[in-house]
Amino acid sequence: MNRKVEIFDTTLRDGMQGLEINYSLEDKLEIASKLDDLGIDYIEGGFPLSNDKEAEFFRKIRSMNLRHARVASFGSTRKAGGSAESDGHIRALLDAETSTVVVVGKTWTEHVTRVIGTNLEENLRMIDDSISFLKKQGRVVIFDLEHFFDGWKGNAEYARKVLSAGMNAGADVMVLCDTNGGTLPHEVSEIYSTLKSEGYQRLGGHFHNDCGTAVANSLAAVNAGAMHIQGTVNGWGERCGNANLCEIMPNLTLKMDYEANCKPNMPHLTGLSRFVAEKANIIPDKRQAFVGVAAFSHKAGQHADVILKAPHLMEHLDGKLVGNSRQVLLSELAGKSTIIEKMRKYGDFGKNDEVVQVLIDELKSRENFGYEYEAAEGSFDLLMRKALGIYTPLVSLKNYHLESYKTATAQSNTVGRMFLDDSGTEVMGAAVGVGPVETLDGALRNALYPHYPDLKKIKLIDYRVRVLNPESASAAKVRVFITSSDGEHDWGTVGVNENIVEASWEALLDSFEYYLNNLNREPGE
Amino acid sequence: MNRKVEIFDTTLRDGMQGLEINYSLEDKLEIASKLDDLGIDYIEGGFPLSNDKEAEFFRKIRSMNLRHARVASFGSTRKAGGSAESDGHIRALLDAETSTVVVVGKTWTEHVTRVIGTNLEENLRMIDDSISFLKKQGRVVIFDLEHFFDGWKGNAEYARKVLSAGMNAGADVMVLCDTNGGTLPHEVSEIYSTLKSEGYQRLGGHFHNDCGTAVANSLAAVNAGAMHIQGTVNGWGERCGNANLCEIMPNLTLKMDYEANCKPNMPHLTGLSRFVAEKANIIPDKRQAFVGVAAFSHKAGQHADVILKAPHLMEHLDGKLVGNSRQVLLSELAGKSTIIEKMRKYGDFGKNDEVVQVLIDELKSRENFGYEYEAAEGSFDLLMRKALGIYTPLVSLKNYHLESYKTATAQSNTVGRMFLDDSGTEVMGAAVGVGPVETLDGALRNALYPHYPDLKKIKLIDYRVRVLNPESASAAKVRVFITSSDGEHDWGTVGVNENIVEASWEALLDSFEYYLNNLNREPGE
Repeated sequence: MNRKVEIFDTTLRDGMQGLEINYSLEDKLEIASKLDDLGIDYIEGGFPLSNDKEAEFFRKIRSMNLRHARVASFGSTRKAGGSAESDGHIRALLDAETSTVVVVGKTWTEHVTRVIGTNLEENLRMIDDSISFLKKQGRVVIFDLEHFFDGWKGNAEYARKVLSAGMNAGADVMVLCDTNGGTLPHEVSEIYSTLKSEGYQRLGGHFHNDCGTAVANSLAAVNAGAMHIQGTVNGWGERCGNANLCEIMPNLTLKMDYEANCKPNMPHLTGLSRFVAEKANIIPDKRQAFVGVAAFSHKAGQHADVILKAPHLMEHLDGKLVGNSRQVLLSELAGKSTIIEKMRKYGDFGKNDEVVQVLIDELKSRENFGYEYEAAEGSFDLLMRKALGIYTPLVSLKNYHLESYKTATAQSNTVGRMFLDDSGTEVMGAAVGVGPVETLDGALRNALYPHYPDLKKIKLIDYRVRVLNPESASAAKVRVFITSSDGEHDWGTVGVNENIVEASWEALLDSFEYYLNNLNREPGE
Repeated sequence: MNRKVEIFDTTLRDGMQGLEINYSLEDKLEIASKLDDLGIDYIEGGFPLSNDKEAEFFRKIRSMNLRHARVASFGSTRKAGGSAESDGHIRALLDAETSTVVVVGKTWTEHVTRVIGTNLEENLRMIDDSISFLKKQGRVVIFDLEHFFDGWKGNAEYARKVLSAGMNAGADVMVLCDTNGGTLPHEVSEIYSTLKSEGYQRLGGHFHNDCGTAVANSLAAVNAGAMHIQGTVNGWGERCGNANLCEIMPNLTLKMDYEANCKPNMPHLTGLSRFVAEKANIIPDKRQAFVGVAAFSHKAGQHADVILKAPHLMEHLDGKLVGNSRQVLLSELAGKSTIIEKMRKYGDFGKNDEVVQVLIDELKSRENFGYEYEAAEGSFDLLMRKALGIYTPLVSLKNYHLESYKTATAQSNTVGRMFLDDSGTEVMGAAVGVGPVETLDGALRNALYPHYPDLKKIKLIDYRVRVLNPESASAAKVRVFITSSDGEHDWGTVGVNENIVEASWEALLDSFEYYLNNLNREPGE
């Protein structure tokens, strides 16, 4: 079987409805760029009418020149009784200036009459009018049939009319949406098969996970003829989430032999999953299929021996195919080739080079401690330099001392002082700030600016904290990620400690050291 | 359709292979009792040969007189070349003195020859001999066909022989196991249908979630004739986990109309899920279908209106049927009806009540400042109480003072002191901790325990920080979320400030105040 399936990502639109999910504009742009790298076909960017941040996303993404993904804006059919041409929703879709627009329309009669309060005929006109108009404006039009499956169960004849209205108006894909997530795989198979046998074409699927079967529903839809599947990275979205693309893509391309543009990039899937988790500031599900930390873990004993001799007897898939690696046992090959790839900026290394093993050992012990280098390329670069013996320490700490205080009438405040050893010379800095991180940053700059004026270019542009072992309450380890920028490049650094102040200090110092080691002292890079 | 399905729980055996899963003997006994209450048919208690704790479990559970669940012990077929009667594994199964025994046997030829190192004929004799012997001892025998699906793909003829050996020896159920978790639902449907058409009976299914489809596989097996399904509570188990019974049971009984002994007890399902999470000391997946905190959550304002008027239009199932409850999330989009729904715990309010407008205005201004109340029901409750004039402040801060310091040779550390006004009386506390949050928490408890001993029950179970306006670098505002628990309930609180210390303090104090205002002072709630 070699049928091709389109992958449509809605992490940045429907996924934003998820509990605790909140991406900044910068996050959204970075995620879009990673999705493009992976070979995702469509990236739904948001609902341009809803607020300025959404509209701004579409302005900014245009200048990013994505390599092949199509960016889509999302909106509903025109209002009842109006015309598409003069409708605010339709206007916002056009103003987003995307190649592709998604138009959502009602399919369930009860939603037509009770929620938007119009009649069934007018709803069909709204669909026809909106899609026809957008097609005339040269857009690729994706028609989301909201509540399709519930609508079908209530009144299949009307659901067919809605589908026909979309097809006849020229929509490029008709996406059957399980908006409430209550549909099961055997129902999906049956409904798509019926529709295909009746001649309906260009069908897509959009599933939610309220029965725990959104991935299976997506696979059932494709097996029964769907050519387009929507979902989100890590399956995050409203309620129990959307269909998880991190599970759908490898199932379709690596296990079911479908074609998709993302197929060659599946080895980057685990990286994408963790990158989005970092941006969402959500601890990724360790048990997630394919990309979870535990997905290729083995709990000791006699199995370990079998795994070395004949891994196919214990693993349904080679984790390397999705960029994941085997746990417990040292994943000699998977680990090394990734590391060698990363070290390429410093030369060509082979699997037997000692420095590669040294770096892997260091990395493993740090990852066990809680470090994560997926989004901390600055800190990882310093580890490589240390292993290669080309690391130049910026300074070494003699001590820092911070005081945070608050009274009933005055704002909280922090003062700090710091003593550093700069190649044998003592330098010191002091600062006042609202919190400890700003104060550490201020004192460090105060100490270093006279000697390293280039550091003035560095700005901290993001700061994130996550507790690693939340069960241990407030004394748990925390991991701090800092993103820094010199206006041209951004880089991430990481620190881990039980003390949030110390973890922040570690990430801060890594950021400054990375800058001076790379961007500044070696301009060729 | 009214076919009956047996539910077999392996939380306490296969589930124990999961990452970070470790139940004490007491935990196992308490979980078994809850499983019995729910109407689970079989409870697999462990592998009695593996260690004393496992054997002790079987001794203790006998005296607990479970109401109807059958307890099962687990072991493998006899060793190659021996006899069942004198085999250590078989002996351990009998010594467990359970009504039911589970015997696992090899189905995949490569595992027979390469892993246990015997020949295909002897493996069949091992199965026949072990099962026949245990049947003669009067046991219910469940035969787990390890790696059945991979075995089928490699050599279907041999897989059929293994199945026939089990049936002919009199096993009560033949459980087809997807040990490596690589099988997809369409394959499951096809294989069970083929076997049923060939006359194989008494089939069960045991699935792992390595493709993200274990629940769908279980449903497909039942639809194609399986009468017995194995899984774990919350789906926790090796690698990506076992099939999740918290999703399988409501799908089978509430959505697919199968009969099962657990059916009348589905309103206790959410309680069971959270109880096991508490015992496992793992934060339950908020996005879990049916039983997750977010499973019946709703974000947008306009939807909330529809939910009140016609919930079936927005929810695939009434959450009460599985013991879950609707959560209306507050967000920028929330409208009056959302707020009124939340205020219902304090009375019936209408859209024109002034207190509703007061609360909305307060919420808007706080959301503009950076607060988010979706995951901070504790802080939101305090806002409602303030608006309604029924808020009791715990204490008021006079001042706090923290010092964080580090030297080149010593670990970082924080010391702190705090003065509070408790209804006119000054109370004070001091603490040493690794970081400022632990120190604030410690000093607050030190000050308050003598007056409010109930606060000892509160544990901080999660702590999250996010920068709100990252462009402003390290002086940006941060939002801190704290999740607290008293062992029975969890609640979230939020703080926002430019100073991470102050934001943490705010969330911490809210948590303590929420507890005393609600859970403690008003036991009727």
